[in-house]
Amino acid sequence: MPSIDPAGLPLEQKVSLLSGRDFWTTKPVEAAGIAPIVLTDGPHGIRLQRDGTDHLDFYDSLPATCLPPAVAVGSSWDVEVARRLGAAVGREARALGVTVVLGPGVNIKRSPLCGRNFEYYSEDPLLAGMLGAAHVRGLQAQGVGASVKHFAANNQETDRMRISADVDERTLREIYLAAFERIVTEARPATVMTSYNRINGTPASQHRWLLTDVLRGEWGFAGVVVSDWGGVNDRVAALAAGLDLQMPGTGGASDAEIVRAVRAGALDEAHVDASARRVAALSGLVTEAGGELPVDEHHALARELAADCVVLLRNADGVLPLARPSRIAVIGDLATSPRFQGGGSSRINPTRVDVPLDAIRALGESVTYAQGYRTDGPGDDREALLARAVRTAAAADVAIVFAGVDKETEGVDREHIALPAEQVALIRAVAAAAPRTVVVLAGGGVMSLEGWHDEVDAILAGWLLGQAAGGAIADVLFGVVNPSGHLAETIPLRLADTPSYLNFPGEAGHVRYGEGVMVGYRYYQTVERTVRYPFGHGLSYTTFTTDALEVSLTGDDTATAHVTVTNTGGRTGRHVIQVYVATAAGPVRRPARELRTFTKITLRPGETRTVDLDLDRRAFAYYDIELHRWVVAPGDYTIQVGENSAHIVAEQSVALTGDSGHRPLSLDSPFGDWLHHPVVGPQLRRSLGGGMTEQSRKALEQNPDLLESISSMPIRQVLSMAGTRFRDEELARLMELSR
Amino acid sequence: MPSIDPAGLPLEQKVSLLSGRDFWTTKPVEAAGIAPIVLTDGPHGIRLQRDGTDHLDFYDSLPATCLPPAVAVGSSWDVEVARRLGAAVGREARALGVTVVLGPGVNIKRSPLCGRNFEYYSEDPLLAGMLGAAHVRGLQAQGVGASVKHFAANNQETDRMRISADVDERTLREIYLAAFERIVTEARPATVMTSYNRINGTPASQHRWLLTDVLRGEWGFAGVVVSDWGGVNDRVAALAAGLDLQMPGTGGASDAEIVRAVRAGALDEAHVDASARRVAALSGLVTEAGGELPVDEHHALARELAADCVVLLRNADGVLPLARPSRIAVIGDLATSPRFQGGGSSRINPTRVDVPLDAIRALGESVTYAQGYRTDGPGDDREALLARAVRTAAAADVAIVFAGVDKETEGVDREHIALPAEQVALIRAVAAAAPRTVVVLAGGGVMSLEGWHDEVDAILAGWLLGQAAGGAIADVLFGVVNPSGHLAETIPLRLADTPSYLNFPGEAGHVRYGEGVMVGYRYYQTVERTVRYPFGHGLSYTTFTTDALEVSLTGDDTATAHVTVTNTGGRTGRHVIQVYVATAAGPVRRPARELRTFTKITLRPGETRTVDLDLDRRAFAYYDIELHRWVVAPGDYTIQVGENSAHIVAEQSVALTGDSGHRPLSLDSPFGDWLHHPVVGPQLRRSLGGGMTEQSRKALEQNPDLLESISSMPIRQVLSMAGTRFRDEELARLMELSR
Repeated sequence: MPSIDPAGLPLEQKVSLLSGRDFWTTKPVEAAGIAPIVLTDGPHGIRLQRDGTDHLDFYDSLPATCLPPAVAVGSSWDVEVARRLGAAVGREARALGVTVVLGPGVNIKRSPLCGRNFEYYSEDPLLAGMLGAAHVRGLQAQGVGASVKHFAANNQETDRMRISADVDERTLREIYLAAFERIVTEARPATVMTSYNRINGTPASQHRWLLTDVLRGEWGFAGVVVSDWGGVNDRVAALAAGLDLQMPGTGGASDAEIVRAVRAGALDEAHVDASARRVAALSGLVTEAGGELPVDEHHALARELAADCVVLLRNADGVLPLARPSRIAVIGDLATSPRFQGGGSSRINPTRVDVPLDAIRALGESVTYAQGYRTDGPGDDREALLARAVRTAAAADVAIVFAGVDKETEGVDREHIALPAEQVALIRAVAAAAPRTVVVLAGGGVMSLEGWHDEVDAILAGWLLGQAAGGAIADVLFGVVNPSGHLAETIPLRLADTPSYLNFPGEAGHVRYGEGVMVGYRYYQTVERTVRYPFGHGLSYTTFTTDALEVSLTGDDTATAHVTVTNTGGRTGRHVIQVYVATAAGPVRRPARELRTFTKITLRPGETRTVDLDLDRRAFAYYDIELHRWVVAPGDYTIQVGENSAHIVAEQSVALTGDSGHRPLSLDSPFGDWLHHPVVGPQLRRSLGGGMTEQSRKALEQNPDLLESISSMPIRQVLSMAGTRFRDEELARLMELSR
Repeated sequence: MPSIDPAGLPLEQKVSLLSGRDFWTTKPVEAAGIAPIVLTDGPHGIRLQRDGTDHLDFYDSLPATCLPPAVAVGSSWDVEVARRLGAAVGREARALGVTVVLGPGVNIKRSPLCGRNFEYYSEDPLLAGMLGAAHVRGLQAQGVGASVKHFAANNQETDRMRISADVDERTLREIYLAAFERIVTEARPATVMTSYNRINGTPASQHRWLLTDVLRGEWGFAGVVVSDWGGVNDRVAALAAGLDLQMPGTGGASDAEIVRAVRAGALDEAHVDASARRVAALSGLVTEAGGELPVDEHHALARELAADCVVLLRNADGVLPLARPSRIAVIGDLATSPRFQGGGSSRINPTRVDVPLDAIRALGESVTYAQGYRTDGPGDDREALLARAVRTAAAADVAIVFAGVDKETEGVDREHIALPAEQVALIRAVAAAAPRTVVVLAGGGVMSLEGWHDEVDAILAGWLLGQAAGGAIADVLFGVVNPSGHLAETIPLRLADTPSYLNFPGEAGHVRYGEGVMVGYRYYQTVERTVRYPFGHGLSYTTFTTDALEVSLTGDDTATAHVTVTNTGGRTGRHVIQVYVATAAGPVRRPARELRTFTKITLRPGETRTVDLDLDRRAFAYYDIELHRWVVAPGDYTIQVGENSAHIVAEQSVALTGDSGHRPLSLDSPFGDWLHHPVVGPQLRRSLGGGMTEQSRKALEQNPDLLESISSMPIRQVLSMAGTRFRDEELARLMELSR
């Protein structure tokens, strides 16, 4: 920690703390004992550029372990995977002298087209928040700081430096801020990184409501808010809004702007003091770089964690796990040139890379290989490659086709979700030729399974699994590991079925979040739209049954779900208990159901266990934009245990008292609210009858729909139009009654 | 016209012109020769309350002809129907001494649930605008003023006095304002009525951008802006925004507010003068009431117009028209208690009512009847009624079931689109028993046909057809009139398929127009969603073929479509030529296709005709919110002739020069815009190479995706981060080149 309060430093010195010395470090103030901090990417490994390289030598970084990216960790549904991954990154950060590792990225997968989805966990904020919090805990337990990003509503790459995410507050609170809120309040990350985009017109980097009112005021964040690299539009406005540290440095230009603004009285020096104190406090994390990377240990960890992330989507007739004596044909360029990470700031220079084909050969007995297609695009030999692959497949007991989408990279959204046409042709040809066909998919985003799904026997979603992807996939294929991953995002039938389809990626500088809170499975379930595989779907080599669900209320609008599960199959396996809540309570449109808690347990064959899962108040709440708080509406709530978001296997309803259902009436309240108020309504009807001419009363009696037709008119206007002589004192008395 | 300029009157006198004397009349200023105006509902007939009745004796109005409501006129796709209807209303208005008839209503059917859809024409703004303009022309040719309503974005009844329609400008311009724009610019209505709702937070009644900048400034509206009844929140703000006349009066209270505001200097008296002049000018329309209503003539007209509005949805094996010697079973309470109008301000006290059963008996030879169900809700005799209906149907050659939705009324939205369950049961039972079954639907909104559609032979959409509905339906059933109506709104398979489903009717005072411009068929066609019957669908008793389509360019981004159509069937019939334009041009998301012009022609059997339909610039344009104008993007446009919005029978593409595609570059423009600018891009790439370190250049060459990944960053930040030494003069030169 700094030895003196940096607020006492000369203005220029304390301002100097508020931007980088260069691309990756902050400025020291030696007189005050403030050391420079190294911040670098992140999130699933360390990308630390070699000393002396240009910062555009983006990928010339020191070797580090490339652990599974967030798309994979999301599919693990396992907070331990996230925590252990964070811890490993933290150990490597210490070894390399890094103070803050940029990540985790917890933005919501609003569209499968977002080019950076591979760096994010899920379409669901609870899942993203719980995994992100575990990552932060694991990382920071090593004495290294996290930087939760990108705050906020950064759900696309197209026009990302300029686009305004036009999104209403309820949607922000319930979907796009919720993961950040959980992580900040539960795991206390050292830093939060602002996003490049605007939110309702205001750049995130200078969004005072976001950075100060909500992040610090409501959530109690005490750490440093850091800009994304190059993401500051107006340095003075950003500082005033709550952005402490601008990265990278601007050669002193923006520091000078701050100094000028303070001197001119345009910026309160208190902002400088507060931010300087926060940056200085962060320097307390700095320790000496030291020790070797535990390369072997972390590679093994990368393989273990990756295997937990694989999702078995389909397994017809139990073709998987592979029988070891079988003749296996491995097909596809991706089996020898594996894709295991995406491009951009998160791209790691891996310490080693497991090649899938080699890993399969290490476990299998009779393994042949055909390239099938080229990952560098179709060449002249396309037909020959296909023909050779078909011959290879026909001669085997089972063919394993490695397929995957075009490369994904930060900064560029995808335009479709289809596999390359030559890969689809290959899968179909192989499936027609081989006795059994397994497809292993690599890709950081959702891939369409249409056009070939029904023709193959098994499908493994391998996402991007990090440098040990090859080994992990081999482990799952052969049953060394029983697959336990579940989808963290829906696989739709068509891109056009996705809820943001027509509004993504926006136009003219604006992207309309027109689907509101109905993101991912919330949408599909609410509109009852068929999908290929729902959120939460994932198979195992064993089977689990949910034997019982009991829900007990534990306090004011909190509950515990007691779920009893049995492993009814023949293998030890890991099972995810997914607990959803469904309700129609309250004055807002509720999704058909929402994931409210989950856990992952290991069960031996025949083992039964009862697990208690707590549902806090938030599990039942919606955000009320008029009351400015989370509200539990009085009413019925159904607690549901799902195999996935579309398939509920047990449910129980509870009635919650909730918060008061009625709001005080005013002269601006709709007439209908007055009429239907449980206390005021009956009195009003009597008084109206008395205050009205005989003729009017008769007219109303004969036409009861007239009352309805003016029900949304403020009572002030109704009374004036109705010509009643209503005394002010009487109205005041009724309003008082409504409180 | 007033004899003196009302602006010269004392302040109180001229202010007195700006609100009603009572519910339905304005105040005279005799000294200035300004007569009181009578304004009353509207739109498809006159609802003039008897003298001396309380204004809550809503339905105790003088008898008048109830012509087909807008839901029917929309389905006529016939501007002559709209014009003749307007003219008839105008004649009755003159007879009854009415100066301004409130209507037409031209709001867009955003959701089938809107309770007032029966008063609106269509989900398409071109169709609504052309019909509305024809209505206004017909009405005003009689010397009576129209009041186009409800301006604007009033697309629901729920919370209508308070709800904010949160809608982006492109959507407003292209969908929700477009019909108003056409009517104001082409038909010059005497008045425009503001809506009750808010638009992006501001009440329509005090929305200066809407009422002054757009309506008067851009569209040149010179008439009176009048409030909807009771729809003024803040009288002074409304006047300043451009609302001239507040209705009804407030007993002088709001006049006094205006006077106080002027005296206090809070309101420019010029607003008072301008509005007083407009209201005074309107009084020039006043003529003496006189003459009798042409009751018989207008009833015959009501029948003729109504028959043009009926849509033949299904006609399997040509069951319709009915053979006259057949035994006909008429089933359903609605055949004797017809529904022909909705509730609320548009409800007319009809001069007479055609009963469908009577009209069928007048044309048929052997007609039996069974009630089938009760319109006043299912009673104890439900089973007996059903059984008797089935027996009656079984004994006939053809059964005609009259079915329909629950009553609709202003002020209340529907909650579903289903027919009452007992009616569905009846239809199915009758269809199982009768040799042939025809269903005639009554209702002001879309009704679901699911659960019974495939079981019946023919379906007529009878909407609400006005007081002669019974006769018109009989005319169509027996082929006295060949049906020629087409759907003005899509009939979806499920309510959940509608584009506004999740956002309608909003919550917490806001309704998000999340679907943007993708309203109605624009949505279904763009996401390729199957519907029951598409927008534009309608069958005939004859057949038409589109033999040829030729498109000729007629100027800068205008064209004419020459369409050749032949009546290939055996009856004279009326055919609607629907011309759509499809394009992907421009920087905004375009609907799959949009209706851009249409016409309705009559063809004898075997007759061929070539019709020329002009496509103006707007037929190709989108509204650019950055350039603040309508833009024709350079590119390809496909002109399509459709039997309906889903079935294109001829198309031809044209390339349009359009407006300039590139915008001037600035330092805030994304790096990608600079890189891809046709002139500047190549020079920039060369200059970047020169200004960069050797190391940086090499890094970029090896990682071309890096350039893409920063493509949306403003060039200012890119240059700063890239460490290039780029001279300001060079940048200035490139920016100049981009102009």
